[in-house]
Amino acid sequence: MGNADYECPHPVAIPASKPLFKSLESSLKETFFPDDPFRPFKNQPLSKKVVLGLQYFVPILEWAPRYTFEFFKSDLIAGITIASLAVPQGISYASLANLPPIFGLYSSFVPPLVYAMLGSSRDLAVGTVAVASLLISSLLGKEVNPNENPKLYLQLALTATFFAGLFQASLGFLRLGFIVDFLSHATIVGFMGGAATVVCLQQLKGLLGLVNFTHETDLSSVMRSVFSQTHQWRWESGVLGCCFLFFLLLTKYFIGHLKKGLNPPSVSDLAFGSPYLMTAIKTGIITGVIALAEGVAVGRSFAIFKNYHIDGNKEMIAFGMMNIAGSCTSCYLTAGPFSRSAVNFNAGCKTAVSNIVMATAVMITLLFLTPLFFYTPLVVLSSIIMAAMLGLIDYEAAIHLWKIDKFDFLVCMGAYLGVVFGSVEIGLVIAVTLSLLRVLLFVARPRTFILGNIPNSKVFRSVDQYPTANNVPGVLILQIDAPIYFANANYLRERISRWIYEEEEKLKASGETSLHYIILDISAVGSIDTSGISMLEEVKKNADRKGLKLVLANPRSEVIKKLDKSKFIENIGQEWIYLTVGEAVAACNFMLHSCKPNPAAAELHAPENNV
Amino acid sequence: MGNADYECPHPVAIPASKPLFKSLESSLKETFFPDDPFRPFKNQPLSKKVVLGLQYFVPILEWAPRYTFEFFKSDLIAGITIASLAVPQGISYASLANLPPIFGLYSSFVPPLVYAMLGSSRDLAVGTVAVASLLISSLLGKEVNPNENPKLYLQLALTATFFAGLFQASLGFLRLGFIVDFLSHATIVGFMGGAATVVCLQQLKGLLGLVNFTHETDLSSVMRSVFSQTHQWRWESGVLGCCFLFFLLLTKYFIGHLKKGLNPPSVSDLAFGSPYLMTAIKTGIITGVIALAEGVAVGRSFAIFKNYHIDGNKEMIAFGMMNIAGSCTSCYLTAGPFSRSAVNFNAGCKTAVSNIVMATAVMITLLFLTPLFFYTPLVVLSSIIMAAMLGLIDYEAAIHLWKIDKFDFLVCMGAYLGVVFGSVEIGLVIAVTLSLLRVLLFVARPRTFILGNIPNSKVFRSVDQYPTANNVPGVLILQIDAPIYFANANYLRERISRWIYEEEEKLKASGETSLHYIILDISAVGSIDTSGISMLEEVKKNADRKGLKLVLANPRSEVIKKLDKSKFIENIGQEWIYLTVGEAVAACNFMLHSCKPNPAAAELHAPENNV
Repeated sequence: MGNADYECPHPVAIPASKPLFKSLESSLKETFFPDDPFRPFKNQPLSKKVVLGLQYFVPILEWAPRYTFEFFKSDLIAGITIASLAVPQGISYASLANLPPIFGLYSSFVPPLVYAMLGSSRDLAVGTVAVASLLISSLLGKEVNPNENPKLYLQLALTATFFAGLFQASLGFLRLGFIVDFLSHATIVGFMGGAATVVCLQQLKGLLGLVNFTHETDLSSVMRSVFSQTHQWRWESGVLGCCFLFFLLLTKYFIGHLKKGLNPPSVSDLAFGSPYLMTAIKTGIITGVIALAEGVAVGRSFAIFKNYHIDGNKEMIAFGMMNIAGSCTSCYLTAGPFSRSAVNFNAGCKTAVSNIVMATAVMITLLFLTPLFFYTPLVVLSSIIMAAMLGLIDYEAAIHLWKIDKFDFLVCMGAYLGVVFGSVEIGLVIAVTLSLLRVLLFVARPRTFILGNIPNSKVFRSVDQYPTANNVPGVLILQIDAPIYFANANYLRERISRWIYEEEEKLKASGETSLHYIILDISAVGSIDTSGISMLEEVKKNADRKGLKLVLANPRSEVIKKLDKSKFIENIGQEWIYLTVGEAVAACNFMLHSCKPNPAAAELHAPENNV
Repeated sequence: MGNADYECPHPVAIPASKPLFKSLESSLKETFFPDDPFRPFKNQPLSKKVVLGLQYFVPILEWAPRYTFEFFKSDLIAGITIASLAVPQGISYASLANLPPIFGLYSSFVPPLVYAMLGSSRDLAVGTVAVASLLISSLLGKEVNPNENPKLYLQLALTATFFAGLFQASLGFLRLGFIVDFLSHATIVGFMGGAATVVCLQQLKGLLGLVNFTHETDLSSVMRSVFSQTHQWRWESGVLGCCFLFFLLLTKYFIGHLKKGLNPPSVSDLAFGSPYLMTAIKTGIITGVIALAEGVAVGRSFAIFKNYHIDGNKEMIAFGMMNIAGSCTSCYLTAGPFSRSAVNFNAGCKTAVSNIVMATAVMITLLFLTPLFFYTPLVVLSSIIMAAMLGLIDYEAAIHLWKIDKFDFLVCMGAYLGVVFGSVEIGLVIAVTLSLLRVLLFVARPRTFILGNIPNSKVFRSVDQYPTANNVPGVLILQIDAPIYFANANYLRERISRWIYEEEEKLKASGETSLHYIILDISAVGSIDTSGISMLEEVKKNADRKGLKLVLANPRSEVIKKLDKSKFIENIGQEWIYLTVGEAVAACNFMLHSCKPNPAAAELHAPENNV
């Protein structure tokens, strides 16, 4: 019962399969080098290739020759502006990380210089970031008490910074930057909000003037810590902390002595032999990824604004290098904080030279001005931190997520609540797990749709989406919406047989013509594995048994190659595979009306109705 | 620069969004109840509903009234046949699990009776399985030495069986049966082969007549154990073991005394208070899932052969119940072994009554015939196991995987080598991780294709697959092949801008008309999240900046709803969204030829060429 007398208008192509090595090469290239970084190197003499290579790894070599005095004027203003922000922010964030305040200044000196040479963003302002600072204190604080053992704690923080840098640079060199993509926008919104909430809660220590405070970060520990010490509350600060007066009242808490002088070397402080090495590595990896995700996202946002391109892998190498260099020169983890970068952008920076200007200003501060900061009150630091943090709780973004995509909102709230009620790690794990679950669920439970004919056209679309689309009598057209993999093969088999059952029941009830053809539109099936092929074979067997003919429409290159190799094409018959649903339906209609269903098919079909 | 004067032939429908509760309900239903088990309950009186409910949970009530004497004759023969297999297999597998041999017989008595009542397969023969037996001995053997502490070991095996049953039944009740789908066919092939290899290696103990033997299962441990005892090798068995004579030579190793009598109760042996409880739970879950995956796959294969339906969730409940009941009556883990089920099928079984016949035969054996088995030599057991195991190493399936799908082959080999060189858990983890990675990679690195016009049609297909397809001058048509999620949003943005760049370079080199339109065919984009929408917004911005017009073709129901909510439709203009690529191209051509590119666009486009 072939359809040899029906001429197929446009045959479906089965591309020749590529040799294994070649297809492996092209898929590895798409996975690790989607941006094709070697493109400019093609057809160039060796000397030019060396120059391009240097410029690739040290971008300043590429843009420095084009640098003009006009640019410098803008960068100077922007650099001085962000330096004035960098000094108090540096001190605050260092105290958030439970490190000596001077380390916040050190960290605004060396890393910006490194970034200026290696980074590809023109707007990113380098410095310590609040969330990573908090993470360091919460992850390391669990193992080593920063008050009892400040030297060890500092060593671990520097070691963690080293590993963060190493990890970031490795991701870049190994072209694994896409791992950062798995922290979705929703995750970042929730996570930042949660971290900001936690940081604000930690500031209760400063605001209430408490001396003892928990090292845990979750809401219940902090609340217990706060309310178990009500007798210690400084009601003055508690009450007045809400108004602008508090920093006048509490100026007796100073930040301590700030040593004059530039960053001392700290290579000898890297505690590779410490029993806490694993803690440092873990802290380094977690903070490194978070800092990277934030920094790359910030850099990319401004690049889109100004229409230039940022290379994610290159950025990772730059971040990594600046943190490795930083860990050897008394700097702790740095990234590209959003607030400082936004100020940089608004102040009109043109290139990464603004980072060099900022570093120079911080250097001058370190050399001559540190004694001035001796009088910075703790509560001012707390208020600087809180002001920055409140900006990070992006409730508008959360509302936007709720409106557009409920699942993204769930991910966001998972991250937020996980961080606030559990810990930063729990928040991250919840959010990443939910995000991955969504991807897996998309594949495990693909949508299937019944297609109908859009009136006055040869186009077939889902009858759900286009209620005016008409069914074709005797033909059931199903569309599958995802790759057919092991994870959904069983589901799809059951779902397809249910569609057939329901259609047959409906036709039986209405007394219309019975079903003769099932057309599977596999346009949207991007890939198939051996479980998927077995599934199709079973669907075919099942259809045969019911006297139905299985027809395929628009198999894609990869799918048809595999169907051909596994002899499924032979099994179903090449003549039952069409380029479009329209052509498949035309062929089915031709068969239905020219040659009536043959007796064999009718016989096969009859007992089915009795069961 | 709208196209208001061009009339869109078939507008794209934006379905009204469903209320949250309703859409949640329907997606939960598709996830957990894809088979719609409540279908027969609709529009039935209460009494009928109760009967249907009972029949749903206890399938024997459904088919027993229709049971005939003809069926019984077939089932009797099949039951006796599998009983003759069950006795020696039971004894062998129990010794594989390091349990007293009599427990193999006990396990072929109670569980088949439970399955006969609750199971939905007509061909599955219940009994202990080799792989699960091996798993029990390898997982429990690590914690408790079965020779030194046989009572504790036995208790843990029974407790593990209990938890395996509990876990299996829970999966069924919670409708989470699809978790088993994540063990793909390729995983099972590799895993079974690996386990069979390991089991065969373990038989070297029996074949070489070694007394001391390692409890590890990996290749290197076994080889070390074998070759460190060369002086203990029984060369007689080593040499003659290859021929049929060996069991004549080595009959001095007996299996020990078999007690007459039926299964003693073993509820009091369930060691819930043991310090090894966690080991028992872990063993139970791992063996439970493996046994389930094998059993369900076996049942399903035969059901497809005979054209009846198996309910995965119901099977899980049946498996779970039989193991819970088994753990209280001195049975260890049972499932549906492939070999025994195949014999059952070939012997012509009609219903699960063959299991009842087998159980009865085993009962008679237990009551009267056990003394006969006193003379079963160990080496016979070893050869029974090896013969069964060699059938499980399905190298043909592995070759098939290699031919059709290299990645499936990789998964299969990962499972095999992991089991052989590491442990069963390592093998499983490797295979499942690789399988999930494939799904994630499909989403993280979706294919993008350039489409061209198939000659003599209005159809557009990938120029890779259809080399005869023609480009449309001035229009770049891109197809995206996966849902647009956080995991691929960055990649897609970069890839799309690279496609545009490459096309512009090509056009510049050939001096053809420059690019004016980019059509994104998003037919295969089944879903989008907020990161994906941001990506599209950025692509739009980028295109605007280059003076290119972005056009969408065939957005699906879910996608267009979200694009509408996020105002992207407004942003791009409803008139730039078409039902098919063909209609989008027609509109672009109309605009290109009626109104020449306007000056604003030309101006925007010009500076681009200078950069």
